[in-house]
Amino acid sequence: MSSINRQFRLAARPTGMVKESDFEYGEVPVPEIGDAEVLIKTRYISLDPSMRGQMENRADYVAPLEIGDVMRAGGVGVVDASNNPDIAVGTLVSGTFGMQDYCVGNGSDARFRVFAPDTDPQTALGVLGGTGMTAYFGLLEIGEPKAGDVVVISGAAGATGSVAGQIAKIKGCTVIGMAGSDEKCAWLTDELGFDAAINYKTDDIKAALKRHCPKGMNIYFDNVGGEILDLCLARLADNARIVICGGISRYNLEGPIPGPKNYFNLVFRRARMEGFIVVDYVPRFAEAEAVMQQWIDEGKLKYRSTVIDGFENLPKALIKLFAGENIGKMMVRT
Amino acid sequence: MSSINRQFRLAARPTGMVKESDFEYGEVPVPEIGDAEVLIKTRYISLDPSMRGQMENRADYVAPLEIGDVMRAGGVGVVDASNNPDIAVGTLVSGTFGMQDYCVGNGSDARFRVFAPDTDPQTALGVLGGTGMTAYFGLLEIGEPKAGDVVVISGAAGATGSVAGQIAKIKGCTVIGMAGSDEKCAWLTDELGFDAAINYKTDDIKAALKRHCPKGMNIYFDNVGGEILDLCLARLADNARIVICGGISRYNLEGPIPGPKNYFNLVFRRARMEGFIVVDYVPRFAEAEAVMQQWIDEGKLKYRSTVIDGFENLPKALIKLFAGENIGKMMVRT
Repeated sequence: MSSINRQFRLAARPTGMVKESDFEYGEVPVPEIGDAEVLIKTRYISLDPSMRGQMENRADYVAPLEIGDVMRAGGVGVVDASNNPDIAVGTLVSGTFGMQDYCVGNGSDARFRVFAPDTDPQTALGVLGGTGMTAYFGLLEIGEPKAGDVVVISGAAGATGSVAGQIAKIKGCTVIGMAGSDEKCAWLTDELGFDAAINYKTDDIKAALKRHCPKGMNIYFDNVGGEILDLCLARLADNARIVICGGISRYNLEGPIPGPKNYFNLVFRRARMEGFIVVDYVPRFAEAEAVMQQWIDEGKLKYRSTVIDGFENLPKALIKLFAGENIGKMMVRT
Repeated sequence: MSSINRQFRLAARPTGMVKESDFEYGEVPVPEIGDAEVLIKTRYISLDPSMRGQMENRADYVAPLEIGDVMRAGGVGVVDASNNPDIAVGTLVSGTFGMQDYCVGNGSDARFRVFAPDTDPQTALGVLGGTGMTAYFGLLEIGEPKAGDVVVISGAAGATGSVAGQIAKIKGCTVIGMAGSDEKCAWLTDELGFDAAINYKTDDIKAALKRHCPKGMNIYFDNVGGEILDLCLARLADNARIVICGGISRYNLEGPIPGPKNYFNLVFRRARMEGFIVVDYVPRFAEAEAVMQQWIDEGKLKYRSTVIDGFENLPKALIKLFAGENIGKMMVRT
């Protein structure tokens, strides 16, 4: 065991695209654990679009980080030392461990989850982690898919979109994914079973949506916002549901960002647009995990990770996430 | 009985604010009625914000008017001649009769409604008419009010907003109305029982919303769109519902209209924004009429009309509606 705990802390609030100088590297001693506590050695750290918002000085659903705070991040780790008789050394756990090698857990944090010893850590962090849960509850609870629905998903090759699309397929929907490269699009259709994919960087999105959704879409699962949200608003079926899961096209923009100018189509199409936060579903994570593990075992739910080696690459990995360089879950192996 | 049927037809598609020259006055013979048909003499013609959209050449939920078509309009009238044994001469009826003195009905149009002989025609056109039904179903079905909810209503002194606010009060909510004059605001609080009113033309809307909704609003019933929608999006309570009923601030604008830039707050507040069209609820109008008639009889539901005399004033009346010169239902007595 190392005696040093490496950390990345917030050095500056980003303006525009997040950059390496917004992070500060530091080393502190490995923390001591108290009664009933465990010491967790992180092995994989998750990079997620929502990190960008937390670096800004605005409260949304969690408090913003202060300058100097350890960057908040999901992770998977192994219990390295334990004063808790219920959690043995070697246990695989996930939680909001931060961008650091070691953290202290007490097992009572609702987001502290214990996995079976044979679980692949990448699975625990990805499809069974926060992004998988986001896909599961966002699609099923907010999107309310019915067999035969036409479902359009943006950011479809990302960790959340790729899972949401496959769940929609499992529920009997026709699924069209949007992604930013031909390689990503091929993955969606050839490996994940999407019915069609649109390369939003090279295709005429409006024409492609018209071709793939001649009668409009019943669900739009939005990870990106911006112009694509507007184009989908213009192509809704009656009683459609727009799941606002994310808005990655917005996160690194400076200044006022336009809203969806076609929002009034919600009236003409008797449609709704609804947001959600996955942490509200924490009490139901175990239920979702059981269902998704079964789908994985049956070969119905596939996934992929983009793993970057080396703790020191955490800031670079977040920047690569915003550049769309990942397929599936973006993570750093420490 | 006159032998002339006066009409206003669509003369030009409006650009910007609708104007009198967009209408063409004409006279045609009173139509003949066939088997099972009735001849209706209109007595009151309704002016509604949705007319503006129908004058444009775009399909939304109804086909657009063609140049030369009689302007579509709701009305209340009396059966003047009848070949239908089920509908006696003198029966009070409402329906989409158009901007004309006479029209032919066959009683099988789902929107053709028969009222008790002692019904005030203004009641039939207003609180029990399309705008009242819009308020009833929009608030109850889309807004889903619960006792204790804080409900904000824009266009609150209009035909729909004033009814929606009173229904929210009946359901035990705290109701804040927004309107464009001190006279309208006084009507809301002093006569209709709203808890507070905001004069959006003279008050600091953002500060007033903060004062009246310190914990955010649970429902925003939107009749206006624009900047007010954005300010309300910024002040939602968790799990809030935005009922998109109308967007009168948009209807007479030229060129691209910005969307609600704060829409992403739907995510942070786990909120939804939903549109609806009242015609979808036609099969339930009788149910709503019975409930609202009882509220009227009990003195819980009050209303007001702005009645302009003279068929020839129909175009002026629509322009006055968009200028906000009405309190309650805007109508022309022919």
